[in-house]
Amino acid sequence: MEELIKKLREFAAERDWEQFHSPKNLSMALAVEVAEIIEHFQWLTEDQSRNLDPETLRRVREEIGDVQIYLARLADQLGISPIEAGLEKLEINRKKYPPDKARGKATKSTNFDR
Amino acid sequence: MEELIKKLREFAAERDWEQFHSPKNLSMALAVEVAEIIEHFQWLTEDQSRNLDPETLRRVREEIGDVQIYLARLADQLGISPIEAGLEKLEINRKKYPPDKARGKATKSTNFDR
Amino acid sequence: MEELIKKLREFAAERDWEQFHSPKNLSMALAVEVAEIIEHFQWLTEDQSRNLDPETLRRVREEIGDVQIYLARLADQLGISPIEAGLEKLEINRKKYPPDKARGKATKSTNFDR
Amino acid sequence: MEELIKKLREFAAERDWEQFHSPKNLSMALAVEVAEIIEHFQWLTEDQSRNLDPETLRRVREEIGDVQIYLARLADQLGISPIEAGLEKLEINRKKYPPDKARGKATKSTNFDR
Repeated sequence: MEELIKKLREFAAERDWEQFHSPKNLSMALAVEVAEIIEHFQWLTEDQSRNLDPETLRRVREEIGDVQIYLARLADQLGISPIEAGLEKLEINRKKYPPDKARGKATKSTNFDR
Repeated sequence: MEELIKKLREFAAERDWEQFHSPKNLSMALAVEVAEIIEHFQWLTEDQSRNLDPETLRRVREEIGDVQIYLARLADQLGISPIEAGLEKLEINRKKYPPDKARGKATKSTNFDR
Repeated sequence: MEELIKKLREFAAERDWEQFHSPKNLSMALAVEVAEIIEHFQWLTEDQSRNLDPETLRRVREEIGDVQIYLARLADQLGISPIEAGLEKLEINRKKYPPDKARGKATKSTNFDR
Repeated sequence: MEELIKKLREFAAERDWEQFHSPKNLSMALAVEVAEIIEHFQWLTEDQSRNLDPETLRRVREEIGDVQIYLARLADQLGISPIEAGLEKLEINRKKYPPDKARGKATKSTNFDR
Protein backbone atom coordinates (compact mmCIF):
# COMPACT_ATOMS: atom_id res chain seq x y z
CA MET A 1 0.00 0.00 0.00
CA GLU A 2 2.80 2.43 0.87
CA GLU A 3 4.39 1.67 -2.49
CA LEU A 4 1.11 2.22 -4.33
CA ILE A 5 0.49 5.55 -2.60
CA LYS A 6 4.02 6.73 -3.29
CA LYS A 7 3.78 5.82 -6.97
CA LEU A 8 0.43 7.57 -7.28
CA ARG A 9 1.98 10.76 -5.91
CA GLU A 10 4.79 10.59 -8.47
CA PHE A 11 2.38 9.75 -11.26
CA ALA A 12 0.16 12.76 -10.51
CA ALA A 13 3.11 15.11 -9.98
CA GLU A 14 4.83 14.14 -13.25
CA ARG A 15 1.63 14.93 -15.16
CA ASP A 16 0.67 18.04 -13.17
CA TRP A 17 -2.64 16.40 -12.30
CA GLU A 18 -2.72 17.33 -8.61
CA GLN A 19 -4.88 20.31 -9.51
CA PHE A 20 -7.66 17.88 -10.56
CA HIS A 21 -7.33 15.57 -7.57
CA SER A 22 -9.53 17.33 -5.05
CA PRO A 23 -11.31 14.90 -2.70
CA LYS A 24 -14.58 15.94 -4.35
CA ASN A 25 -13.38 14.96 -7.82
CA LEU A 26 -11.72 11.77 -6.60
CA SER A 27 -14.96 10.64 -4.94
CA MET A 28 -16.64 11.01 -8.35
CA ALA A 29 -13.87 9.01 -10.04
CA LEU A 30 -14.37 6.31 -7.42
CA ALA A 31 -18.07 6.05 -8.32
CA VAL A 32 -17.21 5.75 -12.01
CA GLU A 33 -14.76 2.90 -11.39
CA VAL A 34 -17.11 1.01 -9.07
CA ALA A 35 -19.76 1.23 -11.78
CA GLU A 36 -17.32 -0.42 -14.18
CA ILE A 37 -17.17 -3.38 -11.80
CA ILE A 38 -20.98 -3.42 -11.48
CA GLU A 39 -21.30 -3.39 -15.26
CA HIS A 40 -19.79 -6.88 -15.34
CA PHE A 41 -22.19 -8.25 -12.74
CA GLN A 42 -25.49 -6.50 -13.46
CA TRP A 43 -27.09 -9.20 -15.63
CA LEU A 44 -25.39 -12.19 -14.02
CA THR A 45 -26.95 -14.36 -11.33
CA GLU A 46 -25.13 -14.47 -8.02
CA ASP A 47 -23.85 -17.93 -8.90
CA GLN A 48 -22.52 -16.73 -12.23
CA SER A 49 -20.74 -13.88 -10.45
CA ARG A 50 -18.94 -16.47 -8.32
CA ASN A 51 -17.76 -18.33 -11.42
CA LEU A 52 -16.43 -15.83 -13.92
CA ASP A 53 -14.76 -16.91 -17.13
CA PRO A 54 -11.04 -16.02 -17.32
CA GLU A 55 -11.50 -13.04 -19.63
CA THR A 56 -14.21 -11.42 -17.47
CA LEU A 57 -12.13 -12.11 -14.36
CA ARG A 58 -9.15 -10.40 -15.98
CA ARG A 59 -11.25 -7.33 -16.73
CA VAL A 60 -12.85 -7.23 -13.28
CA ARG A 61 -9.34 -7.43 -11.83
CA GLU A 62 -8.37 -4.30 -13.76
CA GLU A 63 -11.43 -2.46 -12.48
CA ILE A 64 -10.63 -3.53 -8.91
CA GLY A 65 -7.16 -2.11 -9.50
CA ASP A 66 -8.70 1.19 -10.58
CA VAL A 67 -10.95 1.38 -7.52
CA GLN A 68 -7.97 0.63 -5.26
CA ILE A 69 -5.95 3.33 -7.04
CA TYR A 70 -8.58 6.04 -6.55
CA LEU A 71 -9.35 4.97 -3.00
CA ALA A 72 -5.66 5.11 -2.05
CA ARG A 73 -5.29 8.48 -3.76
CA LEU A 74 -8.40 9.95 -2.11
CA ALA A 75 -7.29 8.69 1.30
CA ASP A 76 -3.79 10.10 0.75
CA GLN A 77 -5.17 13.54 -0.15
CA LEU A 78 -6.99 13.53 3.21
CA GLY A 79 -4.03 12.17 5.21
CA ILE A 80 -5.79 8.87 5.87
CA SER A 81 -4.46 5.29 5.70
CA PRO A 82 -7.22 3.23 4.03
CA ILE A 83 -6.05 -0.04 5.59
CA GLU A 84 -5.99 1.38 9.12
CA ALA A 85 -9.38 3.00 8.51
CA GLY A 86 -10.69 -0.41 7.42
CA LEU A 87 -9.23 -2.24 10.42
CA GLU A 88 -10.67 0.29 12.86
CA LYS A 89 -14.08 0.20 11.23
CA LEU A 90 -14.08 -3.58 11.42
CA GLU A 91 -13.40 -3.38 15.16
CA ILE A 92 -16.44 -1.11 15.57
CA ASN A 93 -18.58 -3.54 13.61
CA ARG A 94 -17.37 -6.49 15.62
CA LYS A 95 -18.95 -4.95 18.71
CA LYS A 96 -22.07 -3.81 16.91
CA TYR A 97 -22.83 -7.27 15.47
CA PRO A 98 -22.14 -10.00 17.99
CA PRO A 99 -21.93 -13.30 16.07
CA ASP A 100 -24.76 -14.96 17.98
CA LYS A 101 -27.23 -12.19 17.18
CA ALA A 102 -26.21 -11.53 13.60
CA ARG A 103 -25.84 -15.11 12.43
CA GLY A 104 -27.20 -15.73 8.95
CA LYS A 105 -29.49 -12.75 8.90
CA ALA A 106 -30.14 -11.43 5.42
CA THR A 107 -31.09 -8.02 6.71
CA LYS A 108 -29.50 -4.67 6.27
CA SER A 109 -27.14 -5.66 9.06
CA THR A 110 -25.75 -8.35 6.80
CA ASN A 111 -22.74 -6.37 5.92
CA PHE A 112 -19.60 -5.15 7.58
CA ASP A 113 -20.59 -1.60 8.16
CA ARG A 114 -23.81 -1.08 10.05
CA MET B 1 -3.90 -5.72 3.80
CA GLU B 2 -3.28 -9.42 4.52
CA GLU B 3 -4.43 -8.82 8.10
CA LEU B 4 -7.57 -7.01 6.93
CA ILE B 5 -8.48 -9.77 4.48
CA LYS B 6 -7.93 -12.46 7.09
CA LYS B 7 -10.09 -10.66 9.63
CA LEU B 8 -12.86 -10.16 7.09
CA ARG B 9 -12.91 -13.89 6.41
CA GLU B 10 -13.26 -14.64 10.13
CA PHE B 11 -15.88 -11.92 10.55
CA ALA B 12 -18.05 -13.31 7.75
CA ALA B 13 -17.57 -16.94 8.84
CA GLU B 14 -18.51 -16.26 12.48
CA ARG B 15 -21.77 -14.67 11.35
CA ASP B 16 -22.53 -17.12 8.54
CA TRP B 17 -22.60 -14.24 6.09
CA GLU B 18 -20.60 -15.89 3.31
CA GLN B 19 -23.89 -16.85 1.64
CA PHE B 20 -24.60 -13.14 1.05
CA HIS B 21 -21.10 -12.24 -0.14
CA SER B 22 -21.37 -13.09 -3.80
CA PRO B 23 -19.26 -10.78 -6.01
CA LYS B 24 -22.52 -9.41 -7.43
CA ASN B 25 -23.82 -8.40 -3.99
CA LEU B 26 -20.44 -7.06 -2.85
CA SER B 27 -20.22 -4.82 -5.92
CA MET B 28 -23.57 -3.33 -4.88
CA ALA B 29 -22.35 -2.81 -1.31
CA LEU B 30 -19.29 -1.05 -2.72
CA ALA B 31 -21.53 1.40 -4.62
CA VAL B 32 -23.51 2.12 -1.45
CA GLU B 33 -20.37 2.90 0.56
CA VAL B 34 -18.83 5.09 -2.16
CA ALA B 35 -22.09 7.06 -2.22
CA GLU B 36 -21.70 7.66 1.52
CA ILE B 37 -18.36 9.33 0.76
CA ILE B 38 -19.93 11.35 -2.07
CA GLU B 39 -22.72 12.49 0.26
CA HIS B 40 -20.15 14.46 2.25
CA PHE B 41 -18.74 16.20 -0.82
CA GLN B 42 -21.76 16.78 -3.07
CA TRP B 43 -22.55 20.36 -2.03
CA LEU B 44 -18.99 21.42 -1.18
CA THR B 45 -16.70 23.31 -3.51
CA GLU B 46 -13.47 21.56 -4.47
CA ASP B 47 -11.59 23.86 -2.09
CA GLN B 48 -13.91 23.03 0.77
CA SER B 49 -13.39 19.32 0.07
CA ARG B 50 -9.65 19.87 0.54
CA ASN B 51 -10.22 21.52 3.94
CA LEU B 52 -12.68 19.42 5.90
CA ASP B 53 -13.53 20.20 9.50
CA PRO B 54 -12.36 17.49 11.96
CA GLU B 55 -15.83 15.96 12.44
CA THR B 56 -16.49 15.59 8.70
CA LEU B 57 -12.97 14.22 8.21
CA ARG B 58 -13.61 11.63 10.93
CA ARG B 59 -16.81 10.53 9.20
CA VAL B 60 -15.23 10.44 5.73
CA ARG B 61 -12.46 8.31 7.24
CA GLU B 62 -15.04 5.78 8.41
CA GLU B 63 -16.61 5.64 4.95
CA ILE B 64 -13.18 5.15 3.37
CA GLY B 65 -12.71 2.28 5.81
CA ASP B 66 -16.00 0.76 4.62
CA VAL B 67 -15.03 1.05 0.96
CA GLN B 68 -11.65 -0.57 1.69
CA ILE B 69 -13.40 -3.36 3.58
CA TYR B 70 -15.79 -4.21 0.76
CA LEU B 71 -13.12 -3.83 -1.91
CA ALA B 72 -10.79 -6.21 -0.05
CA ARG B 73 -13.64 -8.66 0.52
CA LEU B 74 -14.77 -8.56 -3.13
CA ALA B 75 -11.20 -9.04 -4.35
CA ASP B 76 -10.69 -11.93 -1.92
CA GLN B 77 -13.84 -13.69 -3.15
CA LEU B 78 -12.37 -13.54 -6.66
CA GLY B 79 -8.84 -14.59 -5.64
CA ILE B 80 -7.41 -11.17 -6.45
CA SER B 81 -4.96 -8.98 -4.50
CA PRO B 82 -6.29 -5.42 -4.75
CA ILE B 83 -2.88 -3.83 -4.16
CA GLU B 84 -1.21 -5.91 -6.86
CA ALA B 85 -4.11 -5.19 -9.20
CA GLY B 86 -3.62 -1.47 -8.50
CA LEU B 87 0.14 -1.58 -9.05
CA GLU B 88 -0.23 -3.43 -12.33
CA LYS B 89 -2.93 -1.09 -13.58
CA LEU B 90 -0.73 1.89 -12.73
CA GLU B 91 2.07 0.39 -14.83
CA ILE B 92 -0.31 0.13 -17.79
CA ASN B 93 -1.37 3.75 -17.34
CA ARG B 94 2.21 4.93 -17.11
CA LYS B 95 2.76 3.76 -20.66
CA LYS B 96 -0.59 5.03 -21.90
CA TYR B 97 -0.06 8.55 -20.59
CA PRO B 98 3.51 9.73 -21.10
CA PRO B 99 4.06 12.75 -18.81
CA ASP B 100 4.96 15.13 -21.62
CA LYS B 101 1.74 14.47 -23.51
CA ALA B 102 -0.62 14.28 -20.56
CA ARG B 103 0.68 17.24 -18.58
CA GLY B 104 -2.05 19.36 -17.03
CA LYS B 105 -4.78 18.23 -19.35
CA ALA B 106 -8.23 18.41 -17.81
CA THR B 107 -9.62 15.86 -20.19
CA LYS B 108 -11.01 12.43 -19.63
CA SER B 109 -7.44 11.22 -19.62
CA THR B 110 -6.85 13.23 -16.47
CA ASN B 111 -7.11 10.25 -14.27
CA PHE B 112 -5.13 7.14 -13.56
CA ASP B 113 -7.11 4.71 -15.56
CA ARG B 114 -7.68 5.62 -19.17
CA MET C 1 -43.10 15.96 -15.73
CA GLU C 2 -43.63 19.63 -16.64
CA GLU C 3 -45.32 20.14 -13.28
CA LEU C 4 -42.46 18.43 -11.44
CA ILE C 5 -39.81 20.51 -13.21
CA LYS C 6 -41.72 23.74 -12.54
CA LYS C 7 -42.11 22.92 -8.85
CA LEU C 8 -38.43 22.06 -8.55
CA ARG C 9 -37.51 25.47 -9.97
CA GLU C 10 -39.73 27.21 -7.41
CA PHE C 11 -38.45 25.01 -4.61
CA ALA C 12 -34.81 25.84 -5.39
CA ALA C 13 -35.50 29.54 -5.95
CA GLU C 14 -37.40 29.96 -2.66
CA ARG C 15 -34.47 28.48 -0.76
CA ASP C 16 -31.71 30.18 -2.78
CA TRP C 17 -30.30 26.77 -3.64
CA GLU C 18 -29.64 27.39 -7.32
CA GLN C 19 -26.04 28.23 -6.44
CA PHE C 20 -25.53 24.59 -5.36
CA HIS C 21 -27.31 23.02 -8.31
CA SER C 22 -24.50 22.87 -10.85
CA PRO C 23 -24.77 19.84 -13.16
CA LYS C 24 -21.61 18.51 -11.51
CA ASN C 25 -23.16 18.61 -8.03
CA LEU C 26 -26.50 17.27 -9.22
CA SER C 27 -24.80 14.27 -10.85
CA MET C 28 -23.27 13.49 -7.44
CA ALA C 29 -26.66 13.81 -5.74
CA LEU C 30 -28.07 11.42 -8.32
CA ALA C 31 -25.44 8.81 -7.41
CA VAL C 32 -26.27 9.18 -3.72
CA GLU C 33 -30.00 8.63 -4.31
CA VAL C 34 -29.47 5.65 -6.60
CA ALA C 35 -27.30 4.10 -3.87
CA GLU C 36 -30.22 4.48 -1.46
CA ILE C 37 -32.28 2.31 -3.82
CA ILE C 38 -29.44 -0.20 -4.11
CA GLU C 39 -29.16 -0.36 -0.33
CA HIS C 40 -32.59 -2.00 -0.21
CA PHE C 41 -31.67 -4.63 -2.79
CA GLN C 42 -28.03 -5.46 -2.08
CA TRP C 43 -28.58 -8.53 0.12
CA LEU C 44 -31.81 -9.71 -1.47
CA THR C 45 -32.07 -12.40 -4.12
CA GLU C 46 -33.53 -11.33 -7.44
CA ASP C 47 -36.78 -13.09 -6.52
CA GLN C 48 -36.98 -11.27 -3.21
CA SER C 49 -36.46 -7.97 -5.02
CA ARG C 50 -39.55 -8.78 -7.14
CA ASN C 51 -41.64 -9.38 -4.01
CA LEU C 52 -41.00 -6.59 -1.55
CA ASP C 53 -42.95 -6.27 1.66
CA PRO C 54 -45.17 -3.14 1.80
CA GLU C 55 -42.86 -1.17 4.11
CA THR C 56 -39.77 -1.74 1.93
CA LEU C 57 -41.81 -0.95 -1.18
CA ARG C 58 -42.94 2.32 0.40
CA ARG C 59 -39.33 3.27 1.13
CA VAL C 60 -38.06 2.26 -2.32
CA ARG C 61 -40.87 4.39 -3.78
CA GLU C 62 -39.53 7.41 -1.89
CA GLU C 63 -36.01 6.79 -3.19
CA ILE C 64 -37.34 6.45 -6.74
CA GLY C 65 -39.03 9.80 -6.18
CA ASP C 66 -35.70 11.29 -5.13
CA VAL C 67 -33.90 9.94 -8.19
CA GLN C 68 -36.65 11.30 -10.46
CA ILE C 69 -36.39 14.68 -8.72
CA TYR C 70 -32.64 14.99 -9.22
CA LEU C 71 -32.76 13.63 -12.76
CA ALA C 72 -35.46 16.15 -13.72
CA ARG C 73 -33.52 18.95 -12.04
CA LEU C 74 -30.23 18.01 -13.71
CA ALA C 75 -31.90 17.74 -17.11
CA ASP C 76 -33.62 21.11 -16.59
CA GLN C 77 -30.32 22.79 -15.73
CA LEU C 78 -28.98 21.57 -19.07
CA GLY C 79 -32.10 22.44 -21.08
CA ILE C 80 -32.95 18.81 -21.70
CA SER C 81 -36.29 16.96 -21.48
CA PRO C 82 -35.55 13.62 -19.78
CA ILE C 83 -38.58 11.89 -21.30
CA GLU C 84 -37.70 12.97 -24.84
CA ALA C 85 -34.10 11.98 -24.24
CA GLY C 86 -35.34 8.55 -23.10
CA LEU C 87 -37.64 8.10 -26.09
CA GLU C 88 -34.91 9.03 -28.55
CA LYS C 89 -32.38 6.74 -26.89
CA LEU C 90 -34.86 3.88 -27.03
CA GLU C 91 -35.26 4.44 -30.77
CA ILE C 92 -31.48 4.18 -31.20
CA ASN C 93 -31.44 0.95 -29.20
CA ARG C 94 -34.30 -0.51 -31.19
CA LYS C 95 -32.10 -0.40 -34.28
CA LYS C 96 -29.00 -1.57 -32.47
CA TYR C 97 -30.67 -4.66 -31.01
CA PRO C 98 -33.01 -6.31 -33.50
CA PRO C 99 -35.31 -8.66 -31.53
CA ASP C 100 -34.28 -11.78 -33.40
CA LYS C 101 -30.59 -11.28 -32.65
CA ALA C 102 -30.90 -10.06 -29.07
CA ARG C 103 -33.53 -12.52 -27.85
CA GLY C 104 -32.87 -13.83 -24.34
CA LYS C 105 -29.17 -13.07 -24.33
CA ALA C 106 -27.78 -12.42 -20.88
CA THR C 107 -24.87 -10.48 -22.21
CA LYS C 108 -23.86 -6.91 -21.80
CA SER C 109 -26.27 -6.13 -24.57
CA THR C 110 -29.10 -7.28 -22.35
CA ASN C 111 -30.13 -3.82 -21.48
CA PHE C 112 -31.69 -0.87 -23.17
CA ASP C 113 -28.62 1.14 -23.81
CA ARG C 114 -25.82 -0.64 -25.62
CA MET D 1 -43.93 9.04 -19.45
CA GLU D 2 -46.81 6.62 -20.13
CA GLU D 3 -45.55 6.28 -23.70
CA LEU D 4 -41.99 5.62 -22.53
CA ILE D 5 -43.11 2.97 -20.05
CA LYS D 6 -45.30 1.26 -22.64
CA LYS D 7 -42.49 1.19 -25.19
CA LEU D 8 -40.07 -0.22 -22.63
CA ARG D 9 -42.47 -3.07 -21.91
CA GLU D 10 -42.71 -3.90 -25.62
CA PHE D 11 -38.95 -3.57 -26.07
CA ALA D 12 -38.22 -6.01 -23.24
CA ALA D 13 -40.97 -8.46 -24.28
CA GLU D 14 -39.83 -8.59 -27.92
CA ARG D 15 -36.31 -9.50 -26.80
CA ASP D 16 -37.33 -11.84 -23.96
CA TRP D 17 -35.38 -9.66 -21.55
CA GLU D 18 -37.96 -9.58 -18.76
CA GLN D 19 -36.10 -12.42 -17.09
CA PHE D 20 -33.12 -10.07 -16.53
CA HIS D 21 -35.15 -7.10 -15.36
CA SER D 22 -35.52 -7.86 -11.67
CA PRO D 23 -35.58 -4.72 -9.51
CA LYS D 24 -32.21 -5.80 -8.09
CA ASN D 25 -30.59 -5.93 -11.54
CA LEU D 26 -32.27 -2.73 -12.71
CA SER D 27 -30.94 -0.85 -9.67
CA MET D 28 -27.44 -1.93 -10.72
CA ALA D 29 -28.04 -0.77 -14.29
CA LEU D 30 -29.20 2.57 -12.91
CA ALA D 31 -25.89 2.98 -11.04
CA VAL D 32 -23.94 2.20 -14.20
CA GLU D 33 -25.81 4.82 -16.23
CA VAL D 34 -25.52 7.50 -13.55
CA ALA D 35 -21.78 6.86 -13.51
CA GLU D 36 -21.69 7.53 -17.24
CA ILE D 37 -23.12 10.99 -16.52
CA ILE D 38 -20.60 11.52 -13.71
CA GLU D 39 -17.77 10.53 -16.04
CA HIS D 40 -18.42 13.67 -18.07
CA PHE D 41 -18.34 15.95 -15.02
CA GLN D 42 -15.66 14.44 -12.78
CA TRP D 43 -12.73 16.61 -13.85
CA LEU D 44 -14.71 19.73 -14.73
CA THR D 45 -15.20 22.68 -12.43
CA GLU D 46 -18.77 23.48 -11.47
CA ASP D 47 -18.70 26.42 -13.87
CA GLN D 48 -17.50 24.23 -16.71
CA SER D 49 -20.32 21.79 -15.98
CA ARG D 50 -22.80 24.64 -16.47
CA ASN D 51 -21.29 25.46 -19.88
CA LEU D 52 -20.82 22.25 -21.80
CA ASP D 53 -19.69 22.24 -25.39
CA PRO D 54 -22.34 20.92 -27.84
CA GLU D 55 -20.74 17.50 -28.29
CA THR D 56 -20.47 16.83 -24.54
CA LEU D 57 -24.03 18.10 -24.05
CA ARG D 58 -25.25 15.70 -26.71
CA ARG D 59 -23.56 12.80 -24.97
CA VAL D 60 -24.79 13.80 -21.52
CA ARG D 61 -28.29 14.00 -23.00
CA GLU D 62 -27.99 10.37 -24.14
CA GLU D 63 -26.88 9.28 -20.68
CA ILE D 64 -29.79 11.19 -19.10
CA GLY D 65 -32.04 9.29 -21.51
CA ASP D 66 -30.55 6.00 -20.29
CA VAL D 67 -31.05 6.90 -16.63
CA GLN D 68 -34.68 7.88 -17.36
CA ILE D 69 -35.19 4.60 -19.21
CA TYR D 70 -33.94 2.43 -16.36
CA LEU D 71 -35.69 4.50 -13.71
CA ALA D 72 -39.02 4.20 -15.56
CA ARG D 73 -38.47 0.48 -16.07
CA LEU D 74 -37.54 -0.14 -12.43
CA ALA D 75 -40.55 1.85 -11.22
CA ASP D 76 -42.83 -0.03 -13.63
CA GLN D 77 -41.59 -3.40 -12.36
CA LEU D 78 -42.60 -2.29 -8.85
CA GLY D 79 -45.95 -0.79 -9.89
CA ILE D 80 -44.78 2.75 -9.13
CA SER D 81 -45.21 5.97 -11.10
CA PRO D 82 -41.86 7.81 -10.90
CA ILE D 83 -43.41 11.24 -11.52
CA GLU D 84 -46.04 10.81 -8.80
CA ALA D 85 -43.37 9.47 -6.45
CA GLY D 86 -41.29 12.59 -7.21
CA LEU D 87 -44.21 14.99 -6.67
CA GLU D 88 -45.12 13.39 -3.36
CA LYS D 89 -41.54 13.40 -2.13
CA LEU D 90 -41.24 17.08 -3.03
CA GLU D 91 -44.33 17.81 -0.91
CA ILE D 92 -42.68 16.08 2.06
CA ASN D 93 -39.52 18.10 1.54
CA ARG D 94 -41.46 21.34 1.28
CA LYS D 95 -42.60 20.86 4.88
CA LYS D 96 -39.24 19.61 6.09
CA TYR D 97 -37.34 22.62 4.73
CA PRO D 98 -39.25 25.85 5.24
CA PRO D 99 -37.70 28.46 2.90
CA ASP D 100 -36.80 30.89 5.68
CA LYS D 101 -34.80 28.29 7.59
CA ALA D 102 -33.16 26.58 4.65
CA ARG D 103 -32.22 29.66 2.63
CA GLY D 104 -28.79 29.47 1.06
CA LYS D 105 -27.42 26.85 3.42
CA ALA D 106 -24.70 24.74 1.86
CA THR D 107 -25.33 21.91 4.27
CA LYS D 108 -26.54 18.40 3.74
CA SER D 109 -30.02 19.84 3.77
CA THR D 110 -29.18 21.70 0.58
CA ASN D 111 -30.95 19.26 -1.56
CA PHE D 112 -34.49 18.17 -2.24
CA ASP D 113 -34.54 15.05 -0.23
CA ARG D 114 -33.58 15.43 3.40
